[in-house]
Amino acid sequence: MSPLASVRMGRTEPSVFAEFSELSEKHHSVNLGQGFPDFPMPAFVKEAAIEAIREDYNQYSRPAGHHRLVDVLARRYSPKFDRDIDPFTEIGVVGGATNAIFSALVALVDPDDEVVCVEPYFDAPKIAADLMGATTIGVPLRTDWAETSADWRLDLDELDGALTDRTKLLVLNTPHNPTGKVFSKSELEGIATVVKKYPKLIVLTDEVYEDMVFDGLEHVHIASLPGMFERTISVFSAGKAFSATGWRVGHAIGPEELISPLVRVHQASNFSTPTPLQIATAIAFERGAQEGYFAEFSATLQAKRDKLCRLLRTAGLSPIVPQGGYFLLADTTKVGGVTTEFPLWEAPEDMPLRDRRDFAVCRLLCERAGVTAIPASAFFSLGHRHITDSLARFCFCKEDKTLDEAYKRIVHSGLNATWV
Amino acid sequence: MSPLASVRMGRTEPSVFAEFSELSEKHHSVNLGQGFPDFPMPAFVKEAAIEAIREDYNQYSRPAGHHRLVDVLARRYSPKFDRDIDPFTEIGVVGGATNAIFSALVALVDPDDEVVCVEPYFDAPKIAADLMGATTIGVPLRTDWAETSADWRLDLDELDGALTDRTKLLVLNTPHNPTGKVFSKSELEGIATVVKKYPKLIVLTDEVYEDMVFDGLEHVHIASLPGMFERTISVFSAGKAFSATGWRVGHAIGPEELISPLVRVHQASNFSTPTPLQIATAIAFERGAQEGYFAEFSATLQAKRDKLCRLLRTAGLSPIVPQGGYFLLADTTKVGGVTTEFPLWEAPEDMPLRDRRDFAVCRLLCERAGVTAIPASAFFSLGHRHITDSLARFCFCKEDKTLDEAYKRIVHSGLNATWV
Repeated sequence: MSPLASVRMGRTEPSVFAEFSELSEKHHSVNLGQGFPDFPMPAFVKEAAIEAIREDYNQYSRPAGHHRLVDVLARRYSPKFDRDIDPFTEIGVVGGATNAIFSALVALVDPDDEVVCVEPYFDAPKIAADLMGATTIGVPLRTDWAETSADWRLDLDELDGALTDRTKLLVLNTPHNPTGKVFSKSELEGIATVVKKYPKLIVLTDEVYEDMVFDGLEHVHIASLPGMFERTISVFSAGKAFSATGWRVGHAIGPEELISPLVRVHQASNFSTPTPLQIATAIAFERGAQEGYFAEFSATLQAKRDKLCRLLRTAGLSPIVPQGGYFLLADTTKVGGVTTEFPLWEAPEDMPLRDRRDFAVCRLLCERAGVTAIPASAFFSLGHRHITDSLARFCFCKEDKTLDEAYKRIVHSGLNATWV
Repeated sequence: MSPLASVRMGRTEPSVFAEFSELSEKHHSVNLGQGFPDFPMPAFVKEAAIEAIREDYNQYSRPAGHHRLVDVLARRYSPKFDRDIDPFTEIGVVGGATNAIFSALVALVDPDDEVVCVEPYFDAPKIAADLMGATTIGVPLRTDWAETSADWRLDLDELDGALTDRTKLLVLNTPHNPTGKVFSKSELEGIATVVKKYPKLIVLTDEVYEDMVFDGLEHVHIASLPGMFERTISVFSAGKAFSATGWRVGHAIGPEELISPLVRVHQASNFSTPTPLQIATAIAFERGAQEGYFAEFSATLQAKRDKLCRLLRTAGLSPIVPQGGYFLLADTTKVGGVTTEFPLWEAPEDMPLRDRRDFAVCRLLCERAGVTAIPASAFFSLGHRHITDSLARFCFCKEDKTLDEAYKRIVHSGLNATWV
């Protein structure tokens, strides 16, 4: 860290994605690491943006979001949340889900507060909590042996044990990155019951994969459960919904007393969200609903999930079948040629990330096979990282030919030879 | 402020722009308050964005900026800064100048640090400093009687007196909002001499109006002065440069040890900047330079400045002629019908913003004439707000017909009747 940086910068850790993006580029690797589609976004959404730019929607919008977009979002989520959502006070349009999470942490969390994250988790809330001087505490999903992501379970007693009167925020994520777990209604009801024991506790729920659920499952918004809207910020991403991760448009929904400070931080950090992309997003959600886009996209992703599961299984990297989202975790036990200080399952719980077996495996996959995956222990807090020493995260929102190429490379590398 | 908000939120003040935007909308006012063009952005830049979207530049970019844009920016600024700027370590592409300023404050400033702002100033650094718990100290530009913005001067002894070993950041802005002052090379050299007395002091310079200078003047980058690059972050805005304030694309340039932590905060708050708009910005800077766009835009703005000055003068609101930028300050002494607790020049220095004479005048202009201007005292820190009790800020980057309509409304309102 630069000697000129503020003290708070020293509390942050380098991102696992920076390391593996660089490694991936160096080895011209097939990148199943970062979660973005390598196929084009839908043409009708592109055309909506083009129209908006041509029609001069190119100046500042209202900081909390252009009225056309918040109107569409209120209509979209009111039935889902089973209440009338006020477009002007209960919705904040922001610079992607990352900006929503960051703004929420700055707006709500003080240095002595605790932030409890169900882990494994995406790193955005942790970085923001580190910057704000708050303490992050991880409560892990656990599994003895997982065939599907449903086998990852949250122990409600363990959750309750981690919460205290100092816990300001509980961070949830469903559909879940990296496991692919889709929390069932009864699981969320269990969490809500625990949450309600703590009157000051706020829930921040990352639901950017809301429309990507498979096998006929249904995504449940925790904010739609009785008594939960009042204390929940739900975070969504137009970038994920419409395969435009580079657009950086997202939205947060919640009660005014949570959304108003969040929007104020967003205004301080970004002022507003790119106007033509907001207009396009409004049109995209409207037409998307009318034309069955979401179901179609889900079906496409489910087919890609099935394909990658089949390929990995054949290559000896047994997948835990995900119920939703972009990602799956696969077992790397049988990958050969991995040199680590400790045998699998025997590494100390507090061993640094970079020395863990899953990091060694993912580096090897990148360097020797030319396939990038992300070591799953990076998604855990210190003390829980051993849980996934044998797992790596693969992204399947990729062209079929990309998935095929990754398979061929793994097989040809011989790294999977030990399983035969 | 919401009772659920963090302590740091209570340190921020409501934005003057929120108040006057709302008032403006309520009274269907001609808005010369907010600084955005009401004419279309250049067609060649729109077409570049349209092309980028069609060509599938819609996924995440490198957090510090797409390589195509940072390459163009390095070529653009290397001659201006008289050094080889490294596109990958010395440039950060961010979500507009606001995001650059916010990220710089989070990255560099600790709670016990002081931030010195030459005032009047745009509110972004103050809000960020408030959030980070740092103290903001204002050093005012002063004038006895100003005919042009050159008559606003910074007293170097006063600046020196405000700096201490605890000052982490000095915030400058040239061309200056709201006065329109373009700091001369010798003025900047004077500032640089003072700055160099403080080894740890970093300069944050907001130069978003860099290409909008009039009457043959030249914009000087303080970072181009000897020994200054090493300690300066220079902030620029593609939104301002290409009349696309709603695109939220900006860039910061400086030494790696300042840009690297800034980019890390940007990555935590936004991850990256919208990719298609980055590609369009790269093309815009490239073609803009080839095709004489910047000189043409400057000439257009200069004509608009001249027009608004003439209209305001005729209406009895004597303007201080700006040397650059989007804005001018005009004298409101002769506006009649203003009820304030104290006669002009006699209000206490620490009187709350909302009770000051310039706020009363701007409310009256909005409500009775249907023209929005911004009270200039909002750009000062407590104790210096009396300096502009008789001034209001008008934006002239508007269609000629908008400026004409504002003129007619002021004249017809009779508010200016007292001067005849």
